[in-house]
Amino acid sequence: MPVPDAPSPGALPGSDPSGGPARPSHLDPAIAARLRRTSDGLLAAVVRQYGSTEVLMLAWMDDEALHRTLTTGRATYWSRSRGEYWVKGATSGHHQYVRAVALDCDGDALLVDVDQVGPACHTGRRTCFHNNLPVTGVSGERQARS
Amino acid sequence: MPVPDAPSPGALPGSDPSGGPARPSHLDPAIAARLRRTSDGLLAAVVRQYGSTEVLMLAWMDDEALHRTLTTGRATYWSRSRGEYWVKGATSGHHQYVRAVALDCDGDALLVDVDQVGPACHTGRRTCFHNNLPVTGVSGERQARS
Repeated sequence: MPVPDAPSPGALPGSDPSGGPARPSHLDPAIAARLRRTSDGLLAAVVRQYGSTEVLMLAWMDDEALHRTLTTGRATYWSRSRGEYWVKGATSGHHQYVRAVALDCDGDALLVDVDQVGPACHTGRRTCFHNNLPVTGVSGERQARS
Repeated sequence: MPVPDAPSPGALPGSDPSGGPARPSHLDPAIAARLRRTSDGLLAAVVRQYGSTEVLMLAWMDDEALHRTLTTGRATYWSRSRGEYWVKGATSGHHQYVRAVALDCDGDALLVDVDQVGPACHTGRRTCFHNNLPVTGVSGERQARS
């Protein structure tokens, strides 16, 4: 039985049952074999400003978007709404120059360290995470630690 | 076999066509109305060590997991593999005390700032993002900026 707060071995419900990418890709097969994709063939990509505390945005990559990101040094994503690849900054000028990419322990998420030019968010804000939600619960230990 | 994403204006392919949560929830309806969930009713939750550069992990929340996180101050997720809620640290002791939660601009991702007790990763490492992938491409501007 899996440890309750650990990822379980084996495929997730919602992960690609075929184990393959949704679209053709030139991604190194050794890397592709380590990916555990959503049912629509995607990985969550967390984008961070290199060397800072800033988490800029979350976007989605399929195998080919990851391949292009790794081999061009320009952050490239899959648009779920438009069904196409997009290079961040191609139209806005708000480029992301890739410094490092890491895959997580269970292969379904990426951490992409970038040098962000200008705002990351389409609203003009530096990051996309600008809507704070109210945390009303305070655990006993957290109170003790504050 | 996975169906490749089709371009679609308006609602995202993979987002919940009903606009509602996958499971019953006590989440504030004003917050629930702002969420744009995956087809399985989930949001991506990026978990960061409060006040540091560390991105610890990526997990998934449905409406009720978000409600419990906000109202208990303990990070609570939906396990896709087990189909149940889990409170981080409940069995491992590696608790996450919630300091802040932010929703992103398009309502499909959360940034959760926590005080992490011990390692976040089930492997015993501090973070889950410990598998570096090779970035072989270097853009001209990045070279100039280095």
